[in-house]
Amino acid sequence: MIRESGMAEVQSIGAGATNQAIKAVAIARSYLHEEGIDIVCVPSFIDVAIDEEERTAIRLLIERR
Amino acid sequence: MIRESGMAEVQSIGAGATNQAIKAVAIARSYLHEEGIDIVCVPSFIDVAIDEEERTAIRLLIERR
Repeated sequence: MIRESGMAEVQSIGAGATNQAIKAVAIARSYLHEEGIDIVCVPSFIDVAIDEEERTAIRLLIERR
Repeated sequence: MIRESGMAEVQSIGAGATNQAIKAVAIARSYLHEEGIDIVCVPSFIDVAIDEEERTAIRLLIERR
């Protein structure tokens, strides 16, 4: 996704999911680095409705630097 | 720290700590944004020795964009 559009987005709810997401970014970062692509991530909070309940998720925007 | 040196670093071990760290970045990001400062984070893996045991930590480098 980063290679094609230069951007990706991941949303996670809960510590386990957020941890997995940030690890995925670290892994992607290392192999994209080999191709000369440098990515950074921009974390923010986002409210999402799940089963009519409001939850706060972490939104990770991944962008080329 | 970001205001003074333009850079900060956080290391975390475990899902809970990493989740806290990324939430801290999201919070810092929102108030620095009000001052016109845009920060991004660069996650990577790092091996650290704790009690002579090797552990893999997540290293979050926080930089001004």
